[in-house]
Amino acid sequence: MDTPRETLEVGKKLVEFCKKGENMKAIDQLYSPEIESLEAMSMPGMPDTVRGLDAIRKKNTEWDQAMEVHAMDVEGPFPFGDRFAVHYKFDATNKKDKKRMKGEEVALYTVRNGKIVKEEFFYSM
Amino acid sequence: MDTPRETLEVGKKLVEFCKKGENMKAIDQLYSPEIESLEAMSMPGMPDTVRGLDAIRKKNTEWDQAMEVHAMDVEGPFPFGDRFAVHYKFDATNKKDKKRMKGEEVALYTVRNGKIVKEEFFYSM
Repeated sequence: MDTPRETLEVGKKLVEFCKKGENMKAIDQLYSPEIESLEAMSMPGMPDTVRGLDAIRKKNTEWDQAMEVHAMDVEGPFPFGDRFAVHYKFDATNKKDKKRMKGEEVALYTVRNGKIVKEEFFYSM
Repeated sequence: MDTPRETLEVGKKLVEFCKKGENMKAIDQLYSPEIESLEAMSMPGMPDTVRGLDAIRKKNTEWDQAMEVHAMDVEGPFPFGDRFAVHYKFDATNKKDKKRMKGEEVALYTVRNGKIVKEEFFYSM
């Protein structure tokens, strides 16, 4: 079990990468091979559960290719034991249908042995 | 197990009460007798785990008596299955030492049979 201090360090690094839009670096450096990524809702063309680094990278690449991001606001990390939360707000346009949307979500991350093993995205639409 | 729709309804009511500062009404109407309240950190004079409605009411009363709240910002709820998250930001002065502080935290709530059975407060200092 990680100490709250270690969890906080991982959380700070994640937030730093995300603020710079360097999500792939975050995955490379902070994610465990056992990573599980879970979405609150099932969306067309996107599975609600994704496992493993390759699948997570693919998920991130698909988001990058589908969306033009105008602004991304990242608040956190908020730690508790071996978990930390991050609050994301974004303003993005779907490149296909040109629909612009503002959205926000809270992500809950679980850390084990200094690596993120689970990310859960909380939101509604 | 509650549906995501039920969780969202409980979350919306909680946020409504908290925005009006009616935390006691939230406890009366939305909390289970089995409620557990967990803090990320232990603080002097405040246990990091509190169980049951009476203990939760006492915890809230003590906060109200100790702090003068200038502003409270409540964002959410962000649901996922039987849980939802809320992001709080506050600006408050400790009545005793007159120290004013701005703080924020993410709370993670777990719902069972339409009532909140667990609240976990995520933050660092």
